[in-house]
Amino acid sequence: MAPCLSFFFLFLCSFSAIPANSLPTFFPGAAYQSLIKQAKISKPKLPFKTHYFPQTLDHFTFQPKSSKLFYQKYLINSDYWRKGAPIFVYTGNEGNIEWFAANTGFMLDIAPKFKALLVFIEHRFYGKSMPFGKDSYQSAKTLGYLNSQQALADFAVLITSLKQNLSSEASPVVVFGGSYGGMLAAWFRLKYPHIAIGALASSAPILQFDKLIPWSSFYDAVSQDFKDVSLNCYQVIKGSWAELEAMSTQKQALAELSKTFRTCKSLHSTASARDWLWTAFVYTAMVNYPTKADFMKPLPAYPVQKMCKIIDKIPSRATKLSRAFAAASLYYNYSRSENCFEIEHEVDGHGLHGWDWQTCTEMVMPMTCSKESMFPPSGFDYEEFAEQCRMKYGVSPRPHWITTEFGGERIQKVLKRFGSNIIFSNGMQDPWSRGGSSPC
Amino acid sequence: MAPCLSFFFLFLCSFSAIPANSLPTFFPGAAYQSLIKQAKISKPKLPFKTHYFPQTLDHFTFQPKSSKLFYQKYLINSDYWRKGAPIFVYTGNEGNIEWFAANTGFMLDIAPKFKALLVFIEHRFYGKSMPFGKDSYQSAKTLGYLNSQQALADFAVLITSLKQNLSSEASPVVVFGGSYGGMLAAWFRLKYPHIAIGALASSAPILQFDKLIPWSSFYDAVSQDFKDVSLNCYQVIKGSWAELEAMSTQKQALAELSKTFRTCKSLHSTASARDWLWTAFVYTAMVNYPTKADFMKPLPAYPVQKMCKIIDKIPSRATKLSRAFAAASLYYNYSRSENCFEIEHEVDGHGLHGWDWQTCTEMVMPMTCSKESMFPPSGFDYEEFAEQCRMKYGVSPRPHWITTEFGGERIQKVLKRFGSNIIFSNGMQDPWSRGGSSPC
Repeated sequence: MAPCLSFFFLFLCSFSAIPANSLPTFFPGAAYQSLIKQAKISKPKLPFKTHYFPQTLDHFTFQPKSSKLFYQKYLINSDYWRKGAPIFVYTGNEGNIEWFAANTGFMLDIAPKFKALLVFIEHRFYGKSMPFGKDSYQSAKTLGYLNSQQALADFAVLITSLKQNLSSEASPVVVFGGSYGGMLAAWFRLKYPHIAIGALASSAPILQFDKLIPWSSFYDAVSQDFKDVSLNCYQVIKGSWAELEAMSTQKQALAELSKTFRTCKSLHSTASARDWLWTAFVYTAMVNYPTKADFMKPLPAYPVQKMCKIIDKIPSRATKLSRAFAAASLYYNYSRSENCFEIEHEVDGHGLHGWDWQTCTEMVMPMTCSKESMFPPSGFDYEEFAEQCRMKYGVSPRPHWITTEFGGERIQKVLKRFGSNIIFSNGMQDPWSRGGSSPC
Repeated sequence: MAPCLSFFFLFLCSFSAIPANSLPTFFPGAAYQSLIKQAKISKPKLPFKTHYFPQTLDHFTFQPKSSKLFYQKYLINSDYWRKGAPIFVYTGNEGNIEWFAANTGFMLDIAPKFKALLVFIEHRFYGKSMPFGKDSYQSAKTLGYLNSQQALADFAVLITSLKQNLSSEASPVVVFGGSYGGMLAAWFRLKYPHIAIGALASSAPILQFDKLIPWSSFYDAVSQDFKDVSLNCYQVIKGSWAELEAMSTQKQALAELSKTFRTCKSLHSTASARDWLWTAFVYTAMVNYPTKADFMKPLPAYPVQKMCKIIDKIPSRATKLSRAFAAASLYYNYSRSENCFEIEHEVDGHGLHGWDWQTCTEMVMPMTCSKESMFPPSGFDYEEFAEQCRMKYGVSPRPHWITTEFGGERIQKVLKRFGSNIIFSNGMQDPWSRGGSSPC
């Protein structure tokens, strides 16, 4: 059974909103790729049947090519289904749909009580739902169809068709989702109230756009999670970056670093060690479940506490960097299967990943690190970011589009006034909780 | 001052949803064209300043060409505006924006009371708001961007920008519209509740899709309007079509018909006489205002009553066709400026008109004539209709898209439950009222 808090999903690569030239660059495509691989490899046996739906490429234009069909994957569990009972739909996000199905135990938990049909719909351009097959990520011409509005329309068309095929038009539909999938669930309820009567949007930072919340919120929250466990732990991690940076000016620093970090191959830059540490602390805060779990990586219950225990146990004469490394190792090697660490991943051949594209078009979520965070302070230079997107994809971001389409300052008021039936569920320690709407 | 019921707008060319091969074909492009010309010619002096907004071509994809900008026309009246007061926005429909501004007196009437800013936004691909200039109607490649969702997004982006420029983010926005513009107003409130707090949707047949209402509703309502005034009037019009059809088999019928119909040039077919009559009765029912008005054509107050008075006054020894002609003449010649009638309009060169395109893509509104109507019975063959669209534009209609995107059976429930703040205003005699949502 998946952990009961499996809605604390990750938000992959949103960090690419921070310019590569400014310190630091996080979660490069390669790291993302490895996570996908990891998710693919685990392949849990899921209680779902796989289906494919002929989906329209472009719902919002009527070019001759707009009506091209592609096959969208979706999973169904009808073990508890009684006709007329509710349909629970997971609005898939940035990954293959099995990954989310395997880690959303809550829907399976409650299905018997509601005699509900469970449906997990894969997001276009992820998993097997590739509109242009292997060429889907070729360029902006194909990737242009990857965005949240098209994804929501996919869900609307598929759900409507499914209900007709099941002769269950009267069944109420409730949508579920976590992280970006949670944003989609909330937005789906907002935009398609005639299809979904409610939404459970978990860790859904729908306010992480424009200037709706302080840009430092996310990293401040991650830092606070560590600080709440141990001030020393927070201070050690906060101090480790300077030690790492100092090494970059030393001779033979990389050799020493490779030894400290027990790398399988010699390191070529200190940046990769920094990203490796960073990933460990941020992802661990995101999946700081109160139970043993295996979403991003196998981890014990309360992994942030465990990390800090490691740091606090090591005598203070040891360098901060070595202590930070020891803590980060928990994330990468809790199962003790690694003899050494592959810190520098192979760079992905075409360097085009779905979420990276989404951040370069509509999902512009500025994030900075304040002086109070445990990460090196960093800003967000929109112009530099936009220029990088233009270079990478040949398109400019539309930084204000999401708040125009789905609501900015007034969205919380609207949701309350409308009796929206949207539950925004966030753990208090969830780094995404500050970007989420308050429950209403 | 425009008439107080100026919201009873027309719904141009929706009749193209009836296959051309089945009897009858109504409101051909040429008729539409002439209406546009008429509207252009009148050019009333309007109390508005003209502006142009750099608008994004495609809000819902991120192809390199999607971000191309075009200039969208909008009109502003700030005579009564006090900062912070409401902004009333007319969501433009299928025509140049001056036409609607000149015929929506209600907004000007109430502006002083609310100290409101008035904004009339032109719909893309109409009037001056041509994304590809003169080439906008060239083919499906350009026309593909003409649809309701893109139009709604245009309104959202323009209103958001305008409020920022006026530093009036707190001003409540209310949207207004009639006919298709009324549908847009209602849908805008549904999809963008964070931008508009309410909508006045007049004669907005949002239920005229799929099988939500009987397909014969519209023509039954037109017929009932005439029947309510005079049973004889209804029977004369109902009987006139058979007389017209009988003539098509007679020798020298066209010469006789040309004489009866006082045509400027000899007729080439009886079909054009049929369309001419049809247009007169349908449009007169649509603009059956209780005051003298000049929206489609100059007409007296209660023009349906006037038409029936003409029919009832003519002795019954006269043919039904000649009496129908006399009544129809009121529509075409109330101002007595015509010595003869241009019944066969010039056919539009490229045969591509905005609303015709919209009916061939998303605005599939099936309409039939029942035996009880005063029009010849006719059905709706979707396959034949779709084939014609494919031949004409190279695209297939998506007949279920509107109900998926904006709501089908459940939309009325949703609107009531949501406290939608949408007023669906319909006169009881309005032929579109049966396709409109009940006021809620």
